[in-house]
This record gives sequence, C-alpha cells and structure tokens, in this order.
Amino acid sequence: MTPERIFPMVKLYEQKDVNELDDSSASTSKAGSASLEEFFSVGDFAAAAHQAVKRLADMLSGDSLEGVRLQRPADLMARARNLMVPADRGRFDLHRFSEILDLYLETAIKVNSRGYMARQFSSVMPVAAVFDMVSAMVPQPASYYEAGQLPNIADRLLEETLGRLVGWPHGRFEMVTTSGASLANMTAVLVARNHCFPQSWNGGLAAAGSRRPAIAVGEDAHFSVTRVAGIIGIGQDQVVRLPLNYRRQICPAGAAAALDSAAFCGLDVFCVIASAGTTSIGANDPLPELAALAKRHGAWLHVDAAHNGAFLVSDRLRPRLSGLELADSFCMDAHKTLFVPALCTLLFYKQKGMAETAFPQKDSYVFDPFEDEMTAVQSGVKNFECTKRPAILNLWLAWSLYGRHAFADKLEHLVTMTGAAHDYLASQPDFLVPHRPESNILCFVHRPAGVDSRRLSRLQIQLRDRVRAAGQYLLSKVDLDGRTMLRMVLMNHQIGLHDIEGVVAEIRRHARDILENDATESEQMRLFRLQPGE
Amino acid sequence: MTPERIFPMVKLYEQKDVNELDDSSASTSKAGSASLEEFFSVGDFAAAAHQAVKRLADMLSGDSLEGVRLQRPADLMARARNLMVPADRGRFDLHRFSEILDLYLETAIKVNSRGYMARQFSSVMPVAAVFDMVSAMVPQPASYYEAGQLPNIADRLLEETLGRLVGWPHGRFEMVTTSGASLANMTAVLVARNHCFPQSWNGGLAAAGSRRPAIAVGEDAHFSVTRVAGIIGIGQDQVVRLPLNYRRQICPAGAAAALDSAAFCGLDVFCVIASAGTTSIGANDPLPELAALAKRHGAWLHVDAAHNGAFLVSDRLRPRLSGLELADSFCMDAHKTLFVPALCTLLFYKQKGMAETAFPQKDSYVFDPFEDEMTAVQSGVKNFECTKRPAILNLWLAWSLYGRHAFADKLEHLVTMTGAAHDYLASQPDFLVPHRPESNILCFVHRPAGVDSRRLSRLQIQLRDRVRAAGQYLLSKVDLDGRTMLRMVLMNHQIGLHDIEGVVAEIRRHARDILENDATESEQMRLFRLQPGE
Repeated sequence: MTPERIFPMVKLYEQKDVNELDDSSASTSKAGSASLEEFFSVGDFAAAAHQAVKRLADMLSGDSLEGVRLQRPADLMARARNLMVPADRGRFDLHRFSEILDLYLETAIKVNSRGYMARQFSSVMPVAAVFDMVSAMVPQPASYYEAGQLPNIADRLLEETLGRLVGWPHGRFEMVTTSGASLANMTAVLVARNHCFPQSWNGGLAAAGSRRPAIAVGEDAHFSVTRVAGIIGIGQDQVVRLPLNYRRQICPAGAAAALDSAAFCGLDVFCVIASAGTTSIGANDPLPELAALAKRHGAWLHVDAAHNGAFLVSDRLRPRLSGLELADSFCMDAHKTLFVPALCTLLFYKQKGMAETAFPQKDSYVFDPFEDEMTAVQSGVKNFECTKRPAILNLWLAWSLYGRHAFADKLEHLVTMTGAAHDYLASQPDFLVPHRPESNILCFVHRPAGVDSRRLSRLQIQLRDRVRAAGQYLLSKVDLDGRTMLRMVLMNHQIGLHDIEGVVAEIRRHARDILENDATESEQMRLFRLQPGE
Repeated sequence: MTPERIFPMVKLYEQKDVNELDDSSASTSKAGSASLEEFFSVGDFAAAAHQAVKRLADMLSGDSLEGVRLQRPADLMARARNLMVPADRGRFDLHRFSEILDLYLETAIKVNSRGYMARQFSSVMPVAAVFDMVSAMVPQPASYYEAGQLPNIADRLLEETLGRLVGWPHGRFEMVTTSGASLANMTAVLVARNHCFPQSWNGGLAAAGSRRPAIAVGEDAHFSVTRVAGIIGIGQDQVVRLPLNYRRQICPAGAAAALDSAAFCGLDVFCVIASAGTTSIGANDPLPELAALAKRHGAWLHVDAAHNGAFLVSDRLRPRLSGLELADSFCMDAHKTLFVPALCTLLFYKQKGMAETAFPQKDSYVFDPFEDEMTAVQSGVKNFECTKRPAILNLWLAWSLYGRHAFADKLEHLVTMTGAAHDYLASQPDFLVPHRPESNILCFVHRPAGVDSRRLSRLQIQLRDRVRAAGQYLLSKVDLDGRTMLRMVLMNHQIGLHDIEGVVAEIRRHARDILENDATESEQMRLFRLQPGE
C-alpha cells in the first residue's frame, strides 16, 4: 500500500480545528451540546488512534529483553491519580492520553519481548488486535443474529473447519463461542448435570433426593474446574480427585479405582473432566482410556483443552490429542494458543442439540419464540452471556488471511523450542527437569551443588522474585507435591535457545548472590550466637 | 497535534518492504522462520490499523440514517466463505483485510447512526475503542497484580470515586470488575447463597437439608437473573416472582405478600433481586421499601442496575437510584450507559470482605498464598474469570480525560430526549404510550383508527419487521402481559426530535401498507369464500 492511501484521512482529520470538524459533520437534527459532541470527536479519535498505532508499532519492532517492571501499588496509585483530570469536566488532551498509554505499556507484562516466559499469554496476531478496535467501536453483540450477523456466520465456518480436524461427522456436532474457559467449563458441566439429573434445572440439587451428584477431575485440574462444583450446587466435597502418573497425567487404573471407591461411598459421578494441557506442566490426559471409563460409569466426558486444544490445527501435534473425538464436549482458548485477543473460547459438543440444554430457558423479549433461518444460526440461549463480544471474528479474520498453517507453524515452533529448552536444561548438572514437556510449558528446579533439599523450594521462590526484579526475564513458579519449581511458558516465537541460555545464566547469578548472603547471615549468627529467626 | 508527529511512523513502516523490515528488526537469537515472522509483521499491522482507522473515521463522520441491513444466513455464509484464503497458508493481503472489514461494517447494527434505536448498545467513546486495541495487543490479565498493575489500580480509583457517589463510607465497601452483568448477578447471588447457607459451597445444595433455598425477583427481571437459580443448584421452581405495579416496578405490598406466602410454603428466600432499569421499560424498583422487606426476611438485597446504575454519575439522575446505598450489592454495565466497549461490569458490595466469599477457594499455582501489598489490591479470587480483560481501563481512561460530567451530560441528554419522545408520541392520537420513561427506554403501540385490539400485537411485529427491512431505522419489540409493543432505546446523543418524527412517519406509512394489504386479502377471501389461514 502506498502512503497516499493512508495520509489523506489523517490530513482530513488532523489539519482541521476539532470544533470546526465537529460542526461540519454535525447533522441539522443533532440535539447534543457542542461539548457533548467533543467527547465523540472524530478528529480526536484519529489523533488518539495514530498515537496508539505508533507506540504499538515501536514496541513491536523493539528488541529489548524485558519481563515486567513491578511498581508498588501505592506508588502506581499516586501516578495514576495524577493523570486524572482534576475537575469533573475535561477536554481531550493528546498529551494526557499519551501519558496514560505510556504508563500502561510501561507497567505491562512484556509479552512481545523474548524475556517474557511466565504464563500462557501471547503477543497476538496484530491484525486481530486491530479488529478488536473495530468491534469495540462497532459492537455486534453476537448472541443474536440480527445484531451480530457476521460473528454468527464465522462461528459456523470455524465450527465446520475445526470439527473436521477433530474427525467428527459433518452436521452431527456443534460449537458455541464464549468468554473464557472458566465459563466454557461451567457451561459443559451444566449440560452434563442437566442431562444426568433432568430435575436439577427446575427442582434444584435438593431434588436429587438420596443421590449425591459428583464430578471427577485430575489432581492437576485448573482451579476454575474444581470450583464449578461449588458454584453449581454440587459442593466441593463431591469432587473426586483422580490420581496422576509420573507424567502428571490422570492414571487410568488409579482413576478406575477412585471412581469405584466414589460409587461405593454413594457418590454419583456424572461428569469426568480431563485436561489437554494442564496449567502446571501442560500434560495431556489419556483420553481414550478416560472415555472408556466415563462410559462405563455412565458419565459425561468433558475435556478442558483450553491450552492444548489448538494442537488440532497442526498435523504434527494433533496426534497428541488422540481420543478427543470421544469426548462429549471440550473447550479451547483461542486467546491462549491461537494468538488472538482474550477472551475467545470455543466450546464443542460431540452431539448437536446439546448446547441449548445448558440454560434451558427462553424469554420472549430477548429471543423470538419462533425459530427461523436467522435465529437457527445464532448462539442466543446456548451461551451464558447476553451481550457477547464478537471475539470469534478476530480468529476468523486471521484464519481467513493466513490460513491454518500460520497457527500451526507458530505452535509447532513453540513446542519444538520448549523441547530444546528441556534438553538443554536436562544437560546442566545444576538443574532438575522432572517432566518432558508435552506442549510449551517447562517446569524445572535450580539446584546448585551443596544446597540442602529443604532449602530448595524457598530458593526457587527467591529466584523467581530476583529474576523478576532484575527486569530482563519473567518466569512463574508452581507447587507440585509440596515442592516449588520454576516454570517457563514459551509463547513468543522469537525466543531462541540463546534466550534460554540467558535466563539460565541469570538464575545462576542470582542463586550465587542468595547463597552467599545465606552464608554471611549464618556467619553473623554464629558470631553473635543468634538463632535463625531471632 | 501536528501531522509530522504522526507521519514519521507511517513512513517508517509503510515505505519499507515488509520482508526487509522484518529482517531489520529481527533479533540474532530469533528462531522463527521468515514466514512465521510475517504473520506478526509490524508493517502489516500499521497498514491494517490505518485502514481500520480510516474506515471508522469515515463511518463516525457520516450522517446517513441506518438501522441494520439483514442478510439471509446462507447468502452471508457464501460471501464470508469466499473471503477465506483458499489454501491452508496465506499472506497478509490488505485488500482481503479491507473486504472483511467492509463486510463487518456493512452487516453491523448501525449504533453510530441516528436510525439505530433498538437496544442498549451505544456507540462508544472513541478513545476507549482505541484503548481496546492497545489492551488486545498488550494483554494485561487483570486478575493478578503482577500481570495487570494499572487495571488493578484503576479498579481501586473508580471504586473510590463511584462509591462516594453511592454515599458509602470510605474504606468500608468494595468493587470488583467482571465481564458482563450476567456474571456479576450470578457472582452476587453466590455471595448471598454462601452467606446464608455456609455449607452450600462444600456440601452442595443437598446439604441444605429440609430447607428450600429460594430467590425472589420482579416479574420483569432480566432472563440472566432468573436463570441463576437453575445454574447454582437452587432450581427455577424456587424463584419467587414479585408482582409489579402499573409502572412495572416491584410493588412493595405485593412483594411482602409474596414473600410471606413463599415462607408459608417452606421456601427460604435468601436473596431479593431488584432492578434499577428493567430491560423491558427501564423501570427502577422502589429500593428503600425492598431493602426494608429483605431485612425483615433476613435476605440479601442485590440490585441489577446494569442499565440505570450509571445514573450515579449524574447529579440530576442520581435521586432516581434512591435506596441503592441500602443494597448489599449491585452491578452496573459501563458498556451500556457509560459508553465504553463491552464487556465492562462493575459489581459493588456494601461490606468490604464479601467479594472473596463468592468463590471461597485458593490455588497456589495461580495465586500466592501469602497476601502482601500487591496481592491485596488484585481481584484474583474475587472474580469468576481467570484471564480477565483489563476493560476497566477503557472507563478509567475516558474518565481521566473527560471527567464525570462527560458521562453525565450524555446520559442526561438521552433521558431528556426519551422524555420528549414520550410527550410527542403521547400527543399523537394513533399512538399508545403506557409508561412514562424512567430512563432512555420507551415502549409504545401504534394503533391506527379502526384496528381491532386483537390485531394490534401482530401489527407491532409486522411494523418492527418492515421498519427494519426498509433500512433507515431499527426498533425492537417487547411482550408485556401478553401484548406486543414497539420499543425504542435512545443510546445515540445525536438523535433529536426530528428523528422521532421520522420514525413515526415511517411507522404510519408501513401500517397503511399492511392494513391496505389486510383489506385486499379479506376482500379476496370474501370473493373466493376462503377462511383466514387457508
């Protein structure tokens, strides 16, 4: 594209006086006061947008190593308070806008830097972020066809495309998009609950009588999954924990025993929830075995594939989801591993018609009572939200432009690089790497020679904190079986082995400081005959 | 701002070849392939962003009367399918991007036009839409302080500002932001449930024993409120419906009788849910009376103020929320009546410390077990989402730039204009306007002389459909006590009385057509001795 195609508009809105522009674009029937128009000024919009695009482009083309710059809340609050217009009425001020933008970027986690290795947040495909501005400005509440035509069509197109990759027969399954995996998991469990306890929607859980509805989850299930039981009235005590094997996957034999034992205790497990990509280490549960087990117990199988569900798009990684086609439902977060803005979660049901049983209720002022060709494609009663962002369009847009392989390429690269990081760390004598990564998450422990195993967990937390404070890298930590480990999640495709070596060097440097400090402290305690803790 | 401050960046990214730019910004440690880099190209980002800004600015400065252009799903699907790159791998194509953008804008509800009067969706403050692109590109998952520093601070600043307007004493209440009023209402009812039935989180609803937990809602409560009972295990049968007065507010005397009757039947109403701004007509329930009633029954009072809660910001409108300070909790949708992008809902609790009782569960790999100054300000366990968009920043940004009065001015204008529309319609002999509007929602019936009252409801639906099909205006419809009415929601501050006259003229024109058609049909039936429906 030539600059001429961009510049005319900028000139149009920049070179006019703001008030002149507002007057010239004002309709004769407008009743708003001049100052009211100002808050919606087109000129100010263009100025703010160009400023934002400039800063974002600068950031994207930068290459500094950064994790996050933590500020104390009191300090940040003082800075933020200073940026608020002092009187109750202000005017657009590009300088103030830029300062707020800068403060946001300064204090952000630096997901676009190779130093950010902390959690499952990715830099997004830039075109998708641009589209988020469009859908913010031109809202299409996607629950209704009338109000969100293209998002409802995009749902159907991606349903068809992704369902084919699962291996499900055309027209027999369905997909609903929703705002986050927490909501998707709850929705799927509600479908299972309403299916196995048909009285529960109207009668409540007390209507289950002497039966005790329960769900079964792996020991490493995400906290949003286990709390579903508390929310939907089953109770946390009715969560059966399925034991893990050494790879931290649900162990089928252990799970079978746990379910038998639960049944013996009077629990009625109506839903087994497996993970494809646990939050802690990215493990994939053995889906074929769990599907058979769920079937034997007459239970629904839901797979929380928030993280690894995206493996579907890659011919190389898809086999790791073997058995997903046997699940009654599963969800995946496109905002995690398909690199679009949050929140964009896809919830799939193996059997068409199940989605509308999550919230079996209709209300005429919201939805027309008679189904026609238009209401038939809308998500309406099938999702929790009433106003639902058309987030699916971000994914459909990127998919339409780049095709499936763009996502597959990045995902495969991240998984490969995580494998390489594993091999590198495993070859270092002062690092323990307990699990071979199944996706882009790697947990490890730094264990310098001579460090007591009782000292190790605290050392990892200190390392996480020191690395974070130094500013170049950001890692997270995880507690597994009472041991604290460091955890890296590779989401940025620009990260190379060089960066892994960099963070390792940084960790060693901090560990030396910490341990020297330990030694000095203990020497001082000896000199002054103090006991630790005094 | 001068054009020079914008142009350099555009030149930088536009005049270079895309591949050259990627190479020049590539780090030496980058492992991604060239094609992978391309999907995240800075140059393509700038090109797409400028295209989007141009289209949005053109749209904002346009002044055509438009509602929505409905397309048949099959036709739209064919058009959308055509825009998808045929192979599995594509390249950025500005032309394809523009075509997708255009299709989105073409099929959108035209919330920026004076013709859009259908539902509670507003054109947003443009700076807020710009910021949505920033937070899409630079995500800050706002549940954690580490990952979302500024959003957590913005939460605290707006909590303080808005809580003062409620009249609550500083430091005694709290606010959590969440994704939509459906989620906020469910969260508040969970707090009430966990408060009144402390065993329910762990033991489940069956643990309530012989008690039958119930909630009470007005007959006009939003569908998301009534379905909470089905979701959280109480059961829809345990929803007590409180009768309305002639203004469609909950009638306190009727409510008292309904609650007594419910208690007599063994229902244990633990939560009364009132509305400040019903979806149907925008009515505000009598909060002081309902607060006294809830107290007498030992029940929690939650107010679904999704629509009218924003009246808080206006000195003139705030008195309509009288009694809100007595509620145990209430929520308001900033994406409805504070004109920021969806979803941005604020959930307030009168008593500090209640928020963390909604989901009383902690998980160490997500949240650090020890509270410090940083975790103390984060929303973490207080909200349903794990990944939470920092939507509060859109509101805080606009508030910081424009101050409270910007929101108040627009809201007051909308309410005034709706009152004027009421008076105008009420003065027309062929319109029935059953309720004086309490906010910006107006329901009415067109009743041309000589039309049978049995014919009226169908006529209104036909009018909604014909007005929509003509393309200049968009209205919604609502069913109240078995009667269908037309409904206008004024969200665009540019709408003037002239536009109300315009839609009235349009309605009359369509009604004449419809009734003439009726007459012709009935004449034909008479001639051919057919019965209606044959």
